[in-house]
Amino acid sequence: MTQAAAANAQSTIDELRALLGERLSTSNGVRDHHSKDESWHIPHRPDAVAFPNSTEEVSQIVTICARHKTPVVAYGTGTSLEGAVIPEHGGIVIDLVNFDQVLQVNAEDLDVTVQARVTRKQLNEHIRDLGLFFPIDPGADASLGGMAATRASGTNAVRYGTMRENVLALTVVLADGRVIRTSRRARKSAAGYDLTRLFVGSEGTLGIITEVTLRLYGIPEAMAAAVCSFDSLEGAIDTVIQTIQLGIPVARIELLDDVQMDAVNRFSKLDYPVKDTLFVEFHGTEAGVKEQAELVEAIAGENGGGQFKWATKPEDRTQLWTARHDVTYANKALRPGCEIWATDVCVPISRLAECILESKKDLAESFLIAPLVGHVGDGNFHLGFLIDRNDPKEIAEAERLNERLVMRALAMDGTCTGEHGIGLGKMKFLTAEHGEAVSVMRAVKKALDPLGIMNPGKIFTM
Amino acid sequence: MTQAAAANAQSTIDELRALLGERLSTSNGVRDHHSKDESWHIPHRPDAVAFPNSTEEVSQIVTICARHKTPVVAYGTGTSLEGAVIPEHGGIVIDLVNFDQVLQVNAEDLDVTVQARVTRKQLNEHIRDLGLFFPIDPGADASLGGMAATRASGTNAVRYGTMRENVLALTVVLADGRVIRTSRRARKSAAGYDLTRLFVGSEGTLGIITEVTLRLYGIPEAMAAAVCSFDSLEGAIDTVIQTIQLGIPVARIELLDDVQMDAVNRFSKLDYPVKDTLFVEFHGTEAGVKEQAELVEAIAGENGGGQFKWATKPEDRTQLWTARHDVTYANKALRPGCEIWATDVCVPISRLAECILESKKDLAESFLIAPLVGHVGDGNFHLGFLIDRNDPKEIAEAERLNERLVMRALAMDGTCTGEHGIGLGKMKFLTAEHGEAVSVMRAVKKALDPLGIMNPGKIFTM
Repeated sequence: MTQAAAANAQSTIDELRALLGERLSTSNGVRDHHSKDESWHIPHRPDAVAFPNSTEEVSQIVTICARHKTPVVAYGTGTSLEGAVIPEHGGIVIDLVNFDQVLQVNAEDLDVTVQARVTRKQLNEHIRDLGLFFPIDPGADASLGGMAATRASGTNAVRYGTMRENVLALTVVLADGRVIRTSRRARKSAAGYDLTRLFVGSEGTLGIITEVTLRLYGIPEAMAAAVCSFDSLEGAIDTVIQTIQLGIPVARIELLDDVQMDAVNRFSKLDYPVKDTLFVEFHGTEAGVKEQAELVEAIAGENGGGQFKWATKPEDRTQLWTARHDVTYANKALRPGCEIWATDVCVPISRLAECILESKKDLAESFLIAPLVGHVGDGNFHLGFLIDRNDPKEIAEAERLNERLVMRALAMDGTCTGEHGIGLGKMKFLTAEHGEAVSVMRAVKKALDPLGIMNPGKIFTM
Repeated sequence: MTQAAAANAQSTIDELRALLGERLSTSNGVRDHHSKDESWHIPHRPDAVAFPNSTEEVSQIVTICARHKTPVVAYGTGTSLEGAVIPEHGGIVIDLVNFDQVLQVNAEDLDVTVQARVTRKQLNEHIRDLGLFFPIDPGADASLGGMAATRASGTNAVRYGTMRENVLALTVVLADGRVIRTSRRARKSAAGYDLTRLFVGSEGTLGIITEVTLRLYGIPEAMAAAVCSFDSLEGAIDTVIQTIQLGIPVARIELLDDVQMDAVNRFSKLDYPVKDTLFVEFHGTEAGVKEQAELVEAIAGENGGGQFKWATKPEDRTQLWTARHDVTYANKALRPGCEIWATDVCVPISRLAECILESKKDLAESFLIAPLVGHVGDGNFHLGFLIDRNDPKEIAEAERLNERLVMRALAMDGTCTGEHGIGLGKMKFLTAEHGEAVSVMRAVKKALDPLGIMNPGKIFTM
């Protein structure tokens, strides 16, 4: 940090202290806590952490930061997998921990407005008794504001879409402190530019999301989940492809390879066969679920799948999906002290088998271990390299394998990131993926954050 | 037009003539044809009309126009309902009529890439034999580029979403002639700002769409459509609300009031009861369709609905939906020589009955006639005022009624336009709807079109 930047940071802190009192912290412990996420990226401390209580206070904080050109990074649960919340350039982290209220449930309209730090599980507990649920489920119990900022998805996206499809409106504090509401609660609108979708996925680089209005869904009359092991990875993937192409409305269809199943068994104390495996779930009426399940079971059978092992009781379903959601923690347990470098490519489903098999071949020739788990109904899968981030050789090998994987996905008309975001780790692939379109993103960034204070150094350098 | 502007226009025309030869027209007939859309808005002629053959040529045309600060308006089928394609400030209309090729069908991935002037019906004919269809269906057989630019929807949106959800990627010529591709074919991506959604609904004010990649769907195994008359409007609307709230995945659920049914009967030579009526359609497996239909029929029965009149044969279904899609033409036929002023509010569904009933009360006290038709599953409905646009008294009355309607919808957290766009007619409502957020839209517009040449005078004045 230059002397001038340090002086600015101190002026910012002095003004924020006057505004927030004890709700501004410069303690090492608090700064450390806000220096990192769940990724392999190297932590970096902010200069201070602010704990505002309202959108108005976020606006005041950002106004002060803008005056001193101090970087601002919003923080929800810190569960980013690509360094999105690491304050690379120091400055102020705004921890939205006090934004934990469900503001308004409109059960009749199937929508809800929450403060940004409400987590997906908190929301689902809040609305369960109304017979409603919110389907988007990244592995972590992330904040809904963070999920919107990352354009997150999860296991249900194949049926219900991602945050892109499920955010109706946002309240956003802009880089100069102004506050906007991006849309209203109507299900559709053709009124001007789609600012909701512009801020969804902008990773805090255009503004800070303080409230989120989301679509909700009625809890299906019937749900059934099953696990099916395959003799070959091709068989499992072909089952997925044929299911999607037939238009069977599976709610979830997840692939875990043999390495991943071993990790899951160990961590969650389960005894599934250590084979390439699909986790599937069906939502609908009793008859509809039965019909869907029979169709997919038949497809699996034709592709070398074993019998479906059903989890029909709610607690069995919960156990199954908890095991699935805990893969990051399961993988970390495979090699205590390691970090997970999660790849995140997504390709058109016709290329999925080829993409996975080539990547597994790369992996077989490498000294790194990486379980594979995927939202394969969307064409999205993750390899989780278990690395020691202090070992340059391991970092270099993960870099090499990831770059090969990303270039393979791009050559298949896919993307370097299906749901984790660009963050710090994929900036170098942005131009390879989007070409000249990146200049349009930069123009938008410059127009909305001319000082470059909003989460600087993420998505692209300016 | 100022002398300087006229001189610029002439310079633009000279350069375009050199580029395009006979594919540039300044004939009165061609300019007249490109002076108007299907709305009540007063036509305005462009200075010339260009007929490019490729994205590269569109880029060259825009580059020339940018050099002379000449306005550029893209033209598809001219079926806008809000003046979006009227060249208010003259300049060059780019008619994309030669962009009529389906470029690539990826049946396995359920997507397709088309040139911008391919119409929705043309696409559906092209892919029918593959067992695929594209659901978004505004009344007109509009171009898919125009539908993307307007963020159009139609009768299937309640099940399949709008253009917002169904465009995967766009090729866009920017205001300085550069060409970008907004995304790739992967089903989801978290790679940078969502430029696809930024251009969808931008009404030609940020760039010109030349190619569109769309999601496709398998033609359902079974489809069934029915018509059901109600004794009261409340009964029909309550049927819709309860159907949506129960999560029954209706493919279409459309309301036509008694005035509209009368117009439809006359125009399409049908004999439906002249009552408030729902047109519904179900997609799924044989068993699923049966189950859905029984549920909705029961709900309708509880709300004073008559028996479902089924259209099971494909030709009967086609007749039914053709009649529905032809309402604009049916309404015009009610009063030969009239223009249709179509309102387009969309509200949260819990407020729909109240919004419609209050608007009907306004209408009962007015001298204007306006059939009502609505995509009521989305909370979106249209009143079609039959007006003589040369009669200031009628214009003033339509203005007054529409303004009351829009303000009512906004007070219900709705939007002034569900699917027709802001165009010329709703610019005055944009700030009432979006407040400070309009300044963000303006900032984006200025960043991407600093000269203000892209479809000037639409959405907002700069």
